Amino acid sequence: MAARWKRKDLLGIAELSRDEIELVLDTAESFREVASRPIKKVPTLRGRTVINLFFESSTRTRSSFEIAEKRLSADNINFSSAGSSIEKGESLLDTALNLQAMAPDIIVIRHGHAGAPHMLAKRLSASVINAGDGAHEHPTQALLDAFTIRERLGRIEGLAVSIFGDIEHSRVVRSNIHLLNKLGARVTVGGPKTMVPPAIASMGVRVVDSIEDAVRDADVVMMLRIQLERQSRMVFPSVREYAKRFGLNRQRLQLARPDAIVLHPGPMNRGVEIASDIADGKRSVILDQVANGVAVRMAALYLCSGAHEEAA
Amino acid sequence: MAARWKRKDLLGIAELSRDEIELVLDTAESFREVASRPIKKVPTLRGRTVINLFFESSTRTRSSFEIAEKRLSADNINFSSAGSSIEKGESLLDTALNLQAMAPDIIVIRHGHAGAPHMLAKRLSASVINAGDGAHEHPTQALLDAFTIRERLGRIEGLAVSIFGDIEHSRVVRSNIHLLNKLGARVTVGGPKTMVPPAIASMGVRVVDSIEDAVRDADVVMMLRIQLERQSRMVFPSVREYAKRFGLNRQRLQLARPDAIVLHPGPMNRGVEIASDIADGKRSVILDQVANGVAVRMAALYLCSGAHEEAA
Amino acid sequence: MAARWKRKDLLGIAELSRDEIELVLDTAESFREVASRPIKKVPTLRGRTVINLFFESSTRTRSSFEIAEKRLSADNINFSSAGSSIEKGESLLDTALNLQAMAPDIIVIRHGHAGAPHMLAKRLSASVINAGDGAHEHPTQALLDAFTIRERLGRIEGLAVSIFGDIEHSRVVRSNIHLLNKLGARVTVGGPKTMVPPAIASMGVRVVDSIEDAVRDADVVMMLRIQLERQSRMVFPSVREYAKRFGLNRQRLQLARPDAIVLHPGPMNRGVEIASDIADGKRSVILDQVANGVAVRMAALYLCSGAHEEAA
Repeated sequence: MAARWKRKDLLGIAELSRDEIELVLDTAESFREVASRPIKKVPTLRGRTVINLFFESSTRTRSSFEIAEKRLSADNINFSSAGSSIEKGESLLDTALNLQAMAPDIIVIRHGHAGAPHMLAKRLSASVINAGDGAHEHPTQALLDAFTIRERLGRIEGLAVSIFGDIEHSRVVRSNIHLLNKLGARVTVGGPKTMVPPAIASMGVRVVDSIEDAVRDADVVMMLRIQLERQSRMVFPSVREYAKRFGLNRQRLQLARPDAIVLHPGPMNRGVEIASDIADGKRSVILDQVANGVAVRMAALYLCSGAHEEAA
Repeated sequence: MAARWKRKDLLGIAELSRDEIELVLDTAESFREVASRPIKKVPTLRGRTVINLFFESSTRTRSSFEIAEKRLSADNINFSSAGSSIEKGESLLDTALNLQAMAPDIIVIRHGHAGAPHMLAKRLSASVINAGDGAHEHPTQALLDAFTIRERLGRIEGLAVSIFGDIEHSRVVRSNIHLLNKLGARVTVGGPKTMVPPAIASMGVRVVDSIEDAVRDADVVMMLRIQLERQSRMVFPSVREYAKRFGLNRQRLQLARPDAIVLHPGPMNRGVEIASDIADGKRSVILDQVANGVAVRMAALYLCSGAHEEAA
Repeated sequence: MAARWKRKDLLGIAELSRDEIELVLDTAESFREVASRPIKKVPTLRGRTVINLFFESSTRTRSSFEIAEKRLSADNINFSSAGSSIEKGESLLDTALNLQAMAPDIIVIRHGHAGAPHMLAKRLSASVINAGDGAHEHPTQALLDAFTIRERLGRIEGLAVSIFGDIEHSRVVRSNIHLLNKLGARVTVGGPKTMVPPAIASMGVRVVDSIEDAVRDADVVMMLRIQLERQSRMVFPSVREYAKRFGLNRQRLQLARPDAIVLHPGPMNRGVEIASDIADGKRSVILDQVANGVAVRMAALYLCSGAHEEAA
């Protein structure tokens, strides 16, 4: 089955076929139970070298990749931009070529510029996995979201999925729209007007501007993080105002389908975009997302490494 | 023997029985010799995941835990607050729940607030080991101190142990008083008046305010670090003055018992709270403390992991 | 063969014999192919503990050591000065004695002060490998340079090697002069007058002050990085001026021998000390240097660990 994967890299969802997406999800399923064993380790990538090259801080995503790498028995090293050659003015490509000379099998990269992983993938023989590039793509996040939806609701095809919040700056949104469309979901996006670029409609989604319209009859509600730390020029009046007008709370969630589930990519602002009782409630699958993230990243590392082809 | 340990967590000495304390020390003894093998590694925790979650910088304690984890063959990752979700305003509990979703077996935590590890331990199924919480407890430090005393003097029961320095801000003191009292030592504490809260007497210790009174007839003298970096509002006139009035030197050490030993949790301010010739002298067991720290942490990790029960 | 190595430490090239240098190079050759295996790992240092103690940021050198350590199956931990006991005023020796108490087999150290690794080596039973000390030595860099020259040109004896740039502040230069002289190369150094201390001639090298004189008839041209970040008091008028007067470009490289190769320790300032087409051209062995660095560091770690003696 895994032999259907022919890619060296995982750069974005845009270029994946439905078949490839389902392959990653199915592979992740086979890795999911490793986390519940006493010995959480498989020898799959023993002796492979993985470099985690993070130019933006992200302990959450990096930790998830690190744990995935160790559970696959890979050797990994972390390379962050602070104190690196980057600070000495070296270009991203030169840094990457240097790292590549050390013969890593896989480079996991997060970078502030859209397209940075794609540029590296073309120039490097090592596999490149995009762990987030600018406001462009974050493919493993969309894959773990899909994994979580499928796990809870049994399918993705035909579901009504609503994504609400800062649509403009979110790479999570772009990757999710690509994925959900390919798998046959009906996607709605919404948020404060200043945060929803009209052009998003061209991605094949319905656009709404009230949280009520977004939630109504949805099978899946995905709330995005309001990046308070970036709101130096506030595009909405206040945090309290945001919660009142745009936050997901118990009353609003009642507009959704009876078995609707709630996702959030984290870290959450409790009481802002999501009420605490919803975040901790029985419809929330937010911690499942985190747990599934490790399995999805194990699958991505495994498939891109080519180890499945050697095994075949 | 190890089956006597039933705890998921190691949060403080206050809640441990004498029997439990001795169990940790005995277990540490069995790990002590691993450090002198050419292959310093046992398979005990192979495939277990340990997260080192340090919200205060502490390379010394973190390194000791890291080495302990690797010698037990655990997979470990470091998560520090800099550049983390914490900086994005996430609560400690949400951070911990997220990490827990990645299925770690053990979380080692250092945090500036007293009680933080206890709060997490209640909410998480993972084991929690307290690597220092505010001015509250630092249980592995007290255990390694006790291990070192027992190793050198053969026992703890009945010994006169004096702890001298900044009593108020020291978590090491609190953990040590609990432990030494439980194991039958007679504990004296002392320091500059501004650094010794009168309420400390209620913990069952003798309080003195001169270094001479502390050292006289002691079997064990434990000098605490003066945290020069925190002395923005100096509570004593100068470093030289501190050494003169409160520092441990050769002359003062002669007041102690002939076979008395000297401990210091490090890092030392040589020439301030302790004279260099004492720090390096034959009564000093300061480097033994560091060496034993690795063994004690191996024991704590092993016992909390529950691996001893599976083996039983 | 490896039994010819009797040293505990690798501190500098100055004290090595030609025989010892060749032993490191030959050992590195046997490790070179590990990087091209699917499973890039040998069990050579399994269960050994290596501490990477970096007081200056250097992701490039540290990554190279880290990868070398993992490919040898050693357990490694990173200890950097930021947030460490060092910041609390502890001396280098006390920090090192503390780390040593945790029973590492090898300490890899980079430090801003010349001689720091030598001081530690005398006091510690652990092996010490110098990863750069002030402007003094950087032995593994010189060894990887020599490895790369030998690999490409088949020998070092009799070659004309020119090193050009900031001679005064470069530890790479000092280590390289020692090594190349011992192995029978003829060494020329040059650079802007303000960057070439006259005393360098006493090391047995020819000194020139034009880039043309340096490159003419050279078999090997090694360009040094201009440390733009340190040029607060500019010793040359501008970056453009530097390139024009002192940079290596296509025209100047034509003065060298027809099969001459170009080295650079990195990170490069493209368009300053070296033109981009030269850096990426067929004479450039700059990425080979990086690749060989891992093999040379594996050799250094292996030899200093004494593992070869146990095997013998």
